[in-house]
Amino acid sequence: MRSQTEQVQPQPIPFSEIPLTQEPRNIKLVLAYDGTDFHGWQIQPNVATIQGVLQDTLRGLCQEDIHVNGSGRTDAGVHARGQVAHFKTVSKIPTARLQHALNELLPGSIRVYDCREVEFTFHARYSTKSKLYSYAIRAEPICSPFRRRYAFHVPYELDIEAMASAATCFQGEHDFSSFCDAQDDSPSKVRTVLVSEVVTEEENRLVIYRVEANGFLHRMVRALAGTLIEVGRGRLSPGSILGLLQARQRSAAPWTAPPHGLCLERVKY
Amino acid sequence: MRSQTEQVQPQPIPFSEIPLTQEPRNIKLVLAYDGTDFHGWQIQPNVATIQGVLQDTLRGLCQEDIHVNGSGRTDAGVHARGQVAHFKTVSKIPTARLQHALNELLPGSIRVYDCREVEFTFHARYSTKSKLYSYAIRAEPICSPFRRRYAFHVPYELDIEAMASAATCFQGEHDFSSFCDAQDDSPSKVRTVLVSEVVTEEENRLVIYRVEANGFLHRMVRALAGTLIEVGRGRLSPGSILGLLQARQRSAAPWTAPPHGLCLERVKY
Repeated sequence: MRSQTEQVQPQPIPFSEIPLTQEPRNIKLVLAYDGTDFHGWQIQPNVATIQGVLQDTLRGLCQEDIHVNGSGRTDAGVHARGQVAHFKTVSKIPTARLQHALNELLPGSIRVYDCREVEFTFHARYSTKSKLYSYAIRAEPICSPFRRRYAFHVPYELDIEAMASAATCFQGEHDFSSFCDAQDDSPSKVRTVLVSEVVTEEENRLVIYRVEANGFLHRMVRALAGTLIEVGRGRLSPGSILGLLQARQRSAAPWTAPPHGLCLERVKY
Repeated sequence: MRSQTEQVQPQPIPFSEIPLTQEPRNIKLVLAYDGTDFHGWQIQPNVATIQGVLQDTLRGLCQEDIHVNGSGRTDAGVHARGQVAHFKTVSKIPTARLQHALNELLPGSIRVYDCREVEFTFHARYSTKSKLYSYAIRAEPICSPFRRRYAFHVPYELDIEAMASAATCFQGEHDFSSFCDAQDDSPSKVRTVLVSEVVTEEENRLVIYRVEANGFLHRMVRALAGTLIEVGRGRLSPGSILGLLQARQRSAAPWTAPPHGLCLERVKY
């Protein structure tokens, strides 16, 4: 009888008046954002971040000291089409109303595509089964003013077959020490890659690397994308990927592709 | 033997050393730009305009007091995929080199897609035969963060058939007094519309109005687009368009659609 609940007019309760015994709800959000003008997901003092803007907006709406948890951080300039976050609230604002209000109040660069109550035990980060990222590359002589924010531009043709062949080498369980930020202090660098493929659109002018894994190290997708671009350019052969993985050090593999080609597509639970 | 000329290494000539008898060349540019962050095409003091940025860049490159002429002004926030401009220069920089240098020096929001020498009598504005504009509308519940800069968003479905039917009424020679800025002081408001059609993509979620005419009045395309949106929304019938044209006053027709949906696609000579 959810739809009936949602027709109730919202009555924001001042924080001081909320009885402590009131049951909080756990709310899950699915978000899209254009990361160009943000200093990444994670809240930081004095700069605009997605988590910061979202949390401030929710606090104003619900009149509560809300804390927003994301499925993970995205770096400055990285986009999302399906970032997931959750927060707990005692506010009784119906979820449909909350979504509408958020989309009215948030900047146009952040949109809430779904807003629903979930099990109290759901955690956007710890409940994650896998994540899917895309890395977009535009291979054309001139970088379109309309695409420049959402894809990495290379002014040369890419060998798509070689890239696709190299991409498959990342599938399965591997130690990705060669493909993460040297500062990453994760106790284990082993991750399982479920999908690692190259798709193209617009007659190979738009090349998209899609990668799904049970978890990602810091800057891992951008390191994989940087390596695939080197393969596409003919500077590295698909056969050399295994050796790069086995080296288990960042310096073995090529550069880290820039953030603006990267997009968090989906988080699976 | 153009390609040979273009292989000559560029030797920028200091302005003071250019002999006055040197024959100037007439150079035609085809430009694309994301108009979001500009105060329109036309040069203005203290604000960023396309003409201003382009002219400053060319003056620096050619070391000359260059004046850039566009095919026409685009308003603040309006985009272009095929704006045309020309300028005269005594610089001997080969056109391919000039294009490359411009694309290195201009901001990423402006790109030069073509650069070539043309007849001395060619004038980007006065030689125009017709222009083609598009007006993009995204009809979906939530305005995508990735599309918001390049299309006008409406959160309701549009009646595409009604819009297409209304669009055809604008074809032919008409007095467009009802569909231009009330301040437009053109001596004649009669223009000939060659193409006026509605096309859709992504299952009607992207609706594009395409209009080609021998000339446009100020804000004419945005007035036509605003009217078509009213038709698509069911507030106006396609049968009423003729009456709006015959009224010959701006107040007879609906609102002017916002600039960010508009794009100058092509200028024909």
